[in-house]
Amino acid sequence: MEFSSKLIEKAVNEMSQLPGIGKRTALRLVLHLLKQPKEQTGFLSQALLNMREDIKFCENCHNISDTKVCEICANSTRNHQTICVVEDIRDVMAIENTGQYKGIYHVLGGKISPIEGVGPSQLNISSLVEKVKSGKVIEIIFALSSTMEGDTTNFYIYKQIADSEIVISTIARGISVGDELEYADEITLGRSILHRVPFEKTFKSN
Amino acid sequence: MEFSSKLIEKAVNEMSQLPGIGKRTALRLVLHLLKQPKEQTGFLSQALLNMREDIKFCENCHNISDTKVCEICANSTRNHQTICVVEDIRDVMAIENTGQYKGIYHVLGGKISPIEGVGPSQLNISSLVEKVKSGKVIEIIFALSSTMEGDTTNFYIYKQIADSEIVISTIARGISVGDELEYADEITLGRSILHRVPFEKTFKSN
Repeated sequence: MEFSSKLIEKAVNEMSQLPGIGKRTALRLVLHLLKQPKEQTGFLSQALLNMREDIKFCENCHNISDTKVCEICANSTRNHQTICVVEDIRDVMAIENTGQYKGIYHVLGGKISPIEGVGPSQLNISSLVEKVKSGKVIEIIFALSSTMEGDTTNFYIYKQIADSEIVISTIARGISVGDELEYADEITLGRSILHRVPFEKTFKSN
Repeated sequence: MEFSSKLIEKAVNEMSQLPGIGKRTALRLVLHLLKQPKEQTGFLSQALLNMREDIKFCENCHNISDTKVCEICANSTRNHQTICVVEDIRDVMAIENTGQYKGIYHVLGGKISPIEGVGPSQLNISSLVEKVKSGKVIEIIFALSSTMEGDTTNFYIYKQIADSEIVISTIARGISVGDELEYADEITLGRSILHRVPFEKTFKSN
């Protein structure tokens, strides 16, 4: 792609570093900004800079936060003895949106993935193990992706905390609500039979 | 969508102002920046700001440029008597990439679209009419989108320059190279028969 302006070229190059944004999309976005008032570009740049410079990670759960301890960890009405282990902040948001969980979280910051060069030492695993060993935790819920990497990460952590006397559970795998059986894959369907729940439980939301 | 951080929320809100980027995509992009070194966000913000602040539009053709007159207009080996009228800079890039055009351009900056509230006065039409009236132009080629808005814009400009003694042409509409006839729409196919070209011409690239 040839540009008639070095300024445009540089902006497009930087923009296309973002995941899922190719050169053509980047050019479309840059030309859009050019048509908008100058302030919009200013606001966008400033918001990104502020975010990157000033963002903090919660000391306790590694969730993203504006303060030293995130709102969830600082909330004394929540159950601090149950920890839900998730990959990243998006999973925290997703679970919070369900309104079904009243414990706290622990954000790993990713999952073990040799292909992407992510080992256990790059994740917030040791602080989780310490929390478990401190004896203040009653239950750990694994809520990682149902993939090879997610399972590996689950198992790696499990091995380190298996000798503690706490409940270790994982979120249920099964047929999604609204799905038809004939389209479900065998493994999911098999697990959903294996881990069937008493019918009465489906009446209650908690 | 609830955010655990106001900084993230603001960055996501600004990001999702861009066309085709929703809140979820914006969050994914923002979290990506957060995982990268701080410099990347700095480079991106700076590139966008520089682009927005310092970009110039060519005095002659309104193309985007780093200088007062763009490279194409400043190139004396090009034919300055043939002007190709396009909507925006992307069309200039697309036509330049074909390597088939040696004239100069005139960038309108959009097309007449009552629905989007774009009238003739918001486009660079008067400067084009002036150029034509100055008598230095021999041919005008309309290369606008083949849509209702494109055709309206073509016709609006045509009416103002029709009395000049210049050649006014439009790029050929027809079957795309590689397309099968049975899938072509009737209007395109009809036009391609109406505007058929001598077979010998297809041997030559110019």
